[in-house]
Amino acid sequence: MATITIALDAMGGDFGPSVVVPAAIKMLLKEPHLAIFLVGDEAAIKQQLVECKSATHARLQIIHTTEVVGMDELPSQALRGKKDSSMRVAINLVKENKAQACVSAGNTGALMATAKFVLKTLPGIDRPAIITALPTEHETKTVRVLDLGANVDSSADDLLQFAVMGSVLTEAVENIKQPRVALLNIGEEEIKGNDQVKQTAQLLTESKDINYIGYIEGDDVFKNAADVVVCDGFVGNVSLKVMEGIAKMIAHYIKTSFHENWYTKLIGLIATPVLKNIKKRIDPSRYNGASFLGLQGIVIKSHGGANILGYCSAIHEAIKEVEKNVPKQISDRVGALLETEKPNSTN
Amino acid sequence: MATITIALDAMGGDFGPSVVVPAAIKMLLKEPHLAIFLVGDEAAIKQQLVECKSATHARLQIIHTTEVVGMDELPSQALRGKKDSSMRVAINLVKENKAQACVSAGNTGALMATAKFVLKTLPGIDRPAIITALPTEHETKTVRVLDLGANVDSSADDLLQFAVMGSVLTEAVENIKQPRVALLNIGEEEIKGNDQVKQTAQLLTESKDINYIGYIEGDDVFKNAADVVVCDGFVGNVSLKVMEGIAKMIAHYIKTSFHENWYTKLIGLIATPVLKNIKKRIDPSRYNGASFLGLQGIVIKSHGGANILGYCSAIHEAIKEVEKNVPKQISDRVGALLETEKPNSTN
Repeated sequence: MATITIALDAMGGDFGPSVVVPAAIKMLLKEPHLAIFLVGDEAAIKQQLVECKSATHARLQIIHTTEVVGMDELPSQALRGKKDSSMRVAINLVKENKAQACVSAGNTGALMATAKFVLKTLPGIDRPAIITALPTEHETKTVRVLDLGANVDSSADDLLQFAVMGSVLTEAVENIKQPRVALLNIGEEEIKGNDQVKQTAQLLTESKDINYIGYIEGDDVFKNAADVVVCDGFVGNVSLKVMEGIAKMIAHYIKTSFHENWYTKLIGLIATPVLKNIKKRIDPSRYNGASFLGLQGIVIKSHGGANILGYCSAIHEAIKEVEKNVPKQISDRVGALLETEKPNSTN
Repeated sequence: MATITIALDAMGGDFGPSVVVPAAIKMLLKEPHLAIFLVGDEAAIKQQLVECKSATHARLQIIHTTEVVGMDELPSQALRGKKDSSMRVAINLVKENKAQACVSAGNTGALMATAKFVLKTLPGIDRPAIITALPTEHETKTVRVLDLGANVDSSADDLLQFAVMGSVLTEAVENIKQPRVALLNIGEEEIKGNDQVKQTAQLLTESKDINYIGYIEGDDVFKNAADVVVCDGFVGNVSLKVMEGIAKMIAHYIKTSFHENWYTKLIGLIATPVLKNIKKRIDPSRYNGASFLGLQGIVIKSHGGANILGYCSAIHEAIKEVEKNVPKQISDRVGALLETEKPNSTN
């Protein structure tokens, strides 16, 4: 099996090298064909390596950089002003074919702007999109939702491309033939949805390339009713954040309810194995790693607050996408789609 | 204290009279100044009254109707074709000043279309909006979100009106002076949000009438960071449904985790009081009752699947809005807003 080389932005995220370095070591031990570039401040990385009791590793290489993109920095500023940032250099390694994918827990806007600028979009793709897997009520099944915020105003054509890209990714990574693609909509209106949604529905229905199953409402997203859910980036991002907020609120309620008095604390102690099991099932670490689709290269965004386990999931997502060469597959499918849409010149 | 009369669409919702009638009796016993019209099939209502051991009640009156609006019926069909539906007649009672508010658990689209047609919007209000209270991490504080799906394409001016209406309602019902109003947005873009959001932010900033505190992201909605959150109906409806879906998924995980084997079942038994407490805190019944704002009358939408307790919450919301005369307050505030926006003709 060929080596898979992944560049990690070691400085990105809320915890920087203290999460990225241990995750890198963990994944190198687990994946014998994995090689890693740790991109960032060499001293900080080395210190973390010492703390991991892994001063060196044969498949690990440090690339020293002098700058870091701040979590609140404007994407345009990061792009223009920080050419030696860990984020930029990690993406450059993909561009230069030294790495096959890059993972960063840094500023999402800056990562997208830099990735678009350095790697460019695939031919035929107008806009990249952000996609991630989310849990469903079915223990082993996930649902992938896109776009999660790469774009704020998308046309029906953009949404059609998102559907194709999401379908290709899910087919490749989950080994699902013809994944069920649904369009996020509301159920309250006479003729359902806004203009954008209605136009997209028509395009999806006409497309022979997508297993389009129709509209889906927000509460059905988590019922394993679809494999891919398409929406515009504004709606997707708000939904993702609302999800996070609700899950945190419920976790907060569970915690405070078990901490109310000595008796409930005792019950909490007894219930620990079950509570741990519940926590594990909805643990965001398991689903960490959003893909930027539509670029000439694989870029995975880890959540800024991801822990080591979460960062490992993001690296794992990168490996899977490299193995399946997702950008090439998207390019082929979009190429075929454009081909069928061409007016027949012989008539 | 003056009597408050409320018309209930006894046939609406997934359970019809079997929920509406017991809820009516419960609220009549609790509220000495409440009078209720039960609108619907007289025989079905009477049967439920017998089951509640309340064959009659001095403050209860049945209005017999012959038609029912189906949960999936097109709003336009219901509006044109079912003039003797329980929903239509309940709204008519508000129009005729026989009731001061109406509550229905029926088809949201039909209820909104009928309410708009029969009651009309307030002068100066272009579009009604749907608002509901949602729980926050703070045990006793809620957040009100609008619009939840009355409109699918809203202008910045519409969103400004939603902000005013939400603000008035929250001030009146929660006794909060100058409620904190936030605009739902995403945090991923260079210059945040889409055009609609940016334009609305400007209008809200300029408005002296609203305590506008800026943008809010989806995960902060539940942190008691704002009292009123404004968004367009598409985004609001999707968010509400996503919330429902996530809460149900977590509840499902909790249930299955405690039902895995005899040992976890035993733990579940021990933990019952704490689990009940958690359930109570996130129980949707407590937050049931969405208001249709901007109409010349009070219309409350109960969730179609609400239980008796939930339906009581919806009646309770109606009572509070009658007590504070919310439509009049909205009308006054919108009038003042229009006044200040008028170009000064003396210059």
